Amino acid sequence: MAVGSGETGTLYPVQGITMAAVSAGIKSPGRLDCVLFDLGETARVAGVFTTNAFCAAPVVLCKQHLSKNIPRYFVVNTGNANAGTGQSGLDDALHVCREIAQSQNLPDSTVLPFSTGVIGEPLPVEKISAALPGALNSLTDDAWLDCAKGIMTTDTRPKACSKKVEMEGKSVTITGIAKGAGMIKPDMATMLAYVFTDAEVANDDLQAMLVQAADKSFNRITVDSDTSTNDCCMLTATGKSGVKVNLESSAFINALENVFVDLAKGLVRDAEGASKFVTVRVESGASNDECLRLAYTVAESPLVKTALFASDPNWGRILAAVGRAGLTDLDIARVAIYLDDVCIVENGAVAKGYTEQAGQAVMDREEITIRITLGRGEHAETVWTSDLSHEYVTINAEYRT
Amino acid sequence: MAVGSGETGTLYPVQGITMAAVSAGIKSPGRLDCVLFDLGETARVAGVFTTNAFCAAPVVLCKQHLSKNIPRYFVVNTGNANAGTGQSGLDDALHVCREIAQSQNLPDSTVLPFSTGVIGEPLPVEKISAALPGALNSLTDDAWLDCAKGIMTTDTRPKACSKKVEMEGKSVTITGIAKGAGMIKPDMATMLAYVFTDAEVANDDLQAMLVQAADKSFNRITVDSDTSTNDCCMLTATGKSGVKVNLESSAFINALENVFVDLAKGLVRDAEGASKFVTVRVESGASNDECLRLAYTVAESPLVKTALFASDPNWGRILAAVGRAGLTDLDIARVAIYLDDVCIVENGAVAKGYTEQAGQAVMDREEITIRITLGRGEHAETVWTSDLSHEYVTINAEYRT
Repeated sequence: MAVGSGETGTLYPVQGITMAAVSAGIKSPGRLDCVLFDLGETARVAGVFTTNAFCAAPVVLCKQHLSKNIPRYFVVNTGNANAGTGQSGLDDALHVCREIAQSQNLPDSTVLPFSTGVIGEPLPVEKISAALPGALNSLTDDAWLDCAKGIMTTDTRPKACSKKVEMEGKSVTITGIAKGAGMIKPDMATMLAYVFTDAEVANDDLQAMLVQAADKSFNRITVDSDTSTNDCCMLTATGKSGVKVNLESSAFINALENVFVDLAKGLVRDAEGASKFVTVRVESGASNDECLRLAYTVAESPLVKTALFASDPNWGRILAAVGRAGLTDLDIARVAIYLDDVCIVENGAVAKGYTEQAGQAVMDREEITIRITLGRGEHAETVWTSDLSHEYVTINAEYRT
Repeated sequence: MAVGSGETGTLYPVQGITMAAVSAGIKSPGRLDCVLFDLGETARVAGVFTTNAFCAAPVVLCKQHLSKNIPRYFVVNTGNANAGTGQSGLDDALHVCREIAQSQNLPDSTVLPFSTGVIGEPLPVEKISAALPGALNSLTDDAWLDCAKGIMTTDTRPKACSKKVEMEGKSVTITGIAKGAGMIKPDMATMLAYVFTDAEVANDDLQAMLVQAADKSFNRITVDSDTSTNDCCMLTATGKSGVKVNLESSAFINALENVFVDLAKGLVRDAEGASKFVTVRVESGASNDECLRLAYTVAESPLVKTALFASDPNWGRILAAVGRAGLTDLDIARVAIYLDDVCIVENGAVAKGYTEQAGQAVMDREEITIRITLGRGEHAETVWTSDLSHEYVTINAEYRT
């Protein structure tokens, strides 16, 4: 299942970036499962990574390499997460980086490795190494969709987004891809997202833009509350458009954040077993923290999620989730809850004039907003989530079979 | 589904306590759905209640009545939670209390009301009122099993437990019943538990014993992380055995806590859709708080729970859950994870000598312990949980149909 059409629109090349997706036969023969990006010689790269203490070997190495050198290549494999693999996992990830670096007479640390898939199995280094020459020989500037497919695991469709911004009479492009359908509650970034631009951005600004954009997008989605071991989100700027941008460049930053939000929502629309795309919006809270805490409590409640799957306007479960979120001194008389434009709860009870038909009409929709107003402040937060369906259970009960 | 036999053993009468379970026809004709306890004139009662801010009308009234008077009756209905019902819900709950109180020439506040079932629908006061005279006329001292059945919702079997303790040449009895299979992550108490003893206990000691016993039992279980609006746990002491006990009476307190733990585990064994009973034990932690936080993170992970459902020794998901629990400065090299007696993770990777067959042999069991040692302190905590199955989704997608 998945929600919406999943159309990606036109995916524009980003000057300076070339790419290839090939099949290394990691999980099944012929499937695209190995992706290579060549960032060129001028790129600046910013990254944010999972906060999971058991972070994967490629994440550890990626952070080390980023601190040592200017990256030239990203290499990504799916089908194997290289997580929970200890020292041999680090050796394996380094081996893959070295294969690429040595063929180009570059230091190992110019290559950043990424992996996604099953946790705890040894990385199939030989299969990946055998596939790399083919990838290096087939780099092009327009294989975005193949690359988006080549990083998928339980995703049912590729996620990609592209925007152009006109600045100083020139055109700046931002194009990104992402993957992830389960073990999704990113905390710093999500399970593999790569966004590229040909704008010229200073290193510090690039990192600040990335952190801010990730906070408004990948760090506001949850499928199943499980933060992955492998989350990485990379923002690369080649500078090839000749347009300099900084933290004051609002048109650029808006376009960048649109790309991030589009990709993040794309992950939720294609979440494991998703039949609904749900926006949980908390308004008039005393702080952003309490708004976010409440939004996640509702978005992660198994009972709210199964009611959404059933298209059942069981507003009592939303009310119960609001009540258990642990907000200090919550006055329930001031709380109101809406399904889209239908008020379901006010003054601590069902709203006057609410009818089951009105609630049912909203719940029958594929995209639904649950809006909660606390009536005690100026703060607001939004998170996006999916429902909990039989297919989620099936996918995750059968993942390794 | 449910785990284990569900046998309750012999349920001993408690001197001074009589009870009846009748059918008020709230959900389906003929089903036991209304339970009355007469506590006699000498009983002392302690209660702990849900911390959900949207707590139900009967919970609000129960707390008010407890503070005003010595309780004489508990009246419990299933099929309707009387939660999210505002002032009219309070009026309805009071009406039910008054029916009983007036028939016995007692103040309204001597009756404590309890409800469980669907949230947000008006309490069927007339049906309950019509059933009360029959309940008052059929009070006996041995209808424990009928009463345990009469408070069930999605439970598939009654939960009850009884212990006798010999003290001072006399016999003291403790008997309790409980219900709850979904919306279970009690926080102070659980979705309706009633424990009775004929020991004589001072009020303050009774409350202290209840809080401590609930903390070791109902406050250590989670089915789906959803804390209910209606949780109540009541401990009643009639004094009729002639044996005085206090906080130093270790034999009595041990027996009491055994009853609480037995009932709490009984809820998990009969959790919605449960096919596994899972103990999550965290040891050698720096504090009880971090042990509990980690235990709940593992116990509530949808990915761990679906792997348990599939009997899949996918230890990577346990490792990922440990990693995302947010423990400060966790050194993964010191962490070890066990499935029963099989070490699955040590030194940040799969344990030496671990085999898939050994993991599979444990996962095939119906009762499994996940044990995590942190190697940085003296603290430990245990929580109990169930798996996440198709039947959980079915039950909660179809709950109101």
